[in-house]
Amino acid sequence: MQVAVVGAGDYEERRCSLAMELGRKIAEGGHVLITGGLGGVMEAACQGAREAGGVTVGVLPGEKEAANPFVAVAIGTGMGHGRNAILVRSADVVIALPGLYGTLSEIALALKMGKLVIDLGDWNVDGMRKAESPEEAMRIAEGRGGEGSRR
Amino acid sequence: MQVAVVGAGDYEERRCSLAMELGRKIAEGGHVLITGGLGGVMEAACQGAREAGGVTVGVLPGEKEAANPFVAVAIGTGMGHGRNAILVRSADVVIALPGLYGTLSEIALALKMGKLVIDLGDWNVDGMRKAESPEEAMRIAEGRGGEGSRR
Amino acid sequence: MQVAVVGAGDYEERRCSLAMELGRKIAEGGHVLITGGLGGVMEAACQGAREAGGVTVGVLPGEKEAANPFVAVAIGTGMGHGRNAILVRSADVVIALPGLYGTLSEIALALKMGKLVIDLGDWNVDGMRKAESPEEAMRIAEGRGGEGSRR
Amino acid sequence: MQVAVVGAGDYEERRCSLAMELGRKIAEGGHVLITGGLGGVMEAACQGAREAGGVTVGVLPGEKEAANPFVAVAIGTGMGHGRNAILVRSADVVIALPGLYGTLSEIALALKMGKLVIDLGDWNVDGMRKAESPEEAMRIAEGRGGEGSRR
Repeated sequence: MQVAVVGAGDYEERRCSLAMELGRKIAEGGHVLITGGLGGVMEAACQGAREAGGVTVGVLPGEKEAANPFVAVAIGTGMGHGRNAILVRSADVVIALPGLYGTLSEIALALKMGKLVIDLGDWNVDGMRKAESPEEAMRIAEGRGGEGSRR
Repeated sequence: MQVAVVGAGDYEERRCSLAMELGRKIAEGGHVLITGGLGGVMEAACQGAREAGGVTVGVLPGEKEAANPFVAVAIGTGMGHGRNAILVRSADVVIALPGLYGTLSEIALALKMGKLVIDLGDWNVDGMRKAESPEEAMRIAEGRGGEGSRR
Repeated sequence: MQVAVVGAGDYEERRCSLAMELGRKIAEGGHVLITGGLGGVMEAACQGAREAGGVTVGVLPGEKEAANPFVAVAIGTGMGHGRNAILVRSADVVIALPGLYGTLSEIALALKMGKLVIDLGDWNVDGMRKAESPEEAMRIAEGRGGEGSRR
Repeated sequence: MQVAVVGAGDYEERRCSLAMELGRKIAEGGHVLITGGLGGVMEAACQGAREAGGVTVGVLPGEKEAANPFVAVAIGTGMGHGRNAILVRSADVVIALPGLYGTLSEIALALKMGKLVIDLGDWNVDGMRKAESPEEAMRIAEGRGGEGSRR
């Protein structure tokens, strides 16, 4: 599977530690990690996945040179925030950590496209599946149940 | 100004009558109306604006031939939901009527881009300006005050 | 019809005077003019169309504020050169004046999409229709014959 | 480096055998291969790269499910031909095999973006570097000289 992790681009410890653990689990499950390729949650998730030997993809708003150092494949869209639609379209599952408007737009676009969207960030948007931990998020992503209920 | 009106694409009477009134006021103010070019709120707003002699633009997900009959300028983006980013980027102000995930993605993208986003649909997203009527929405859009407070 | 005029973005007298005449004829024919919204051929075509009372559209690579002063409807795609695909997709007919790589990409994309592409710039790309003047280009565009032969 | 290989999407033996050899050399050089993700030249290049243990990326016009079986990372742009701009923007070097309008648009966009574009298909477009074989193309791509002269 291709699993997108979306969330805030600035550094915040708890959030980034969650993202790193999530990235690791995605790689351990043999999945490709897709992110927006920049900092914060995006970089932490890529770091976790790379350290576990996984493939990491950055779908960047501008040039590929802006990718964080843990991105293995950098897609330079040159489309600004419009790249959010490509990021989620390329994913089988989208997992949302805390974030702001950019992340909200990715959640909304993914739900619009009928993707499975997992809530690891108290988003409380109808249609998301709630998970309490990276582990539970991956159980839901892989269709192995979990406590998460479709809102 | 270029004013975007976003909202659900299916027909619902009260919502479409609001949209038509809003489209008319946009045209009467001498502004260009930008919508997603399809049905429901988009078509009603275009009809209102055209009947008042305004210029209406449809930024379509696929080919321009899909535009509703009240669109004067049809932009065929061929980008699917990715067109939402272009629609709001082309607007000075975005006015949101009730809608679903597509509309939510437009609100989020517009706020991310720092646009003025006016809430005519009980969206309750932080950062929007609340308006109670098309008239009040236009007062806010034109910087003529209004009761709306920045959330 | 929506008629796109493509060509170089820098100022060159003969080319811009051709573009201005072409813009005027497009407006006189009651058609919407679509350009890339910047300078050179794009601005001259828009000026010609506006002076003849026509509707002019600029499909811009970045923000709408970069539009030349003769653009009535400015679409800010934020997509860089990727906007070339939107420009030609939005056109029923593409008329190409002299230009460089950007113009060549628009010609190629338009031919790929099966659009009628008229050569007013010695492009000599297979599939274009050759015209010797703005007048002849419009005769071909409007399906009124002309000397132009499909290469 | 990220190396894009562009060319016709239908199957033709000599062209596809060239593409497969080229894909293999790209992987052997430790580079990421980027293609449009569909058939013909795109599939043959991906097959060559995968058989040599490389990473292959498909930047698809629609959904990621349309990727050929040798694509490891599938980007579903949902942008139609507009994806051509993303494909070349994501490349450090673009190598062009024989193709039609789509390939020509990629060559033009890549030259417009100032990329190194190598001609393995008798394109004869100004600004491309001519190579006679996949081996020579890779020598030029890696800056190891080669006979190719900038046209």
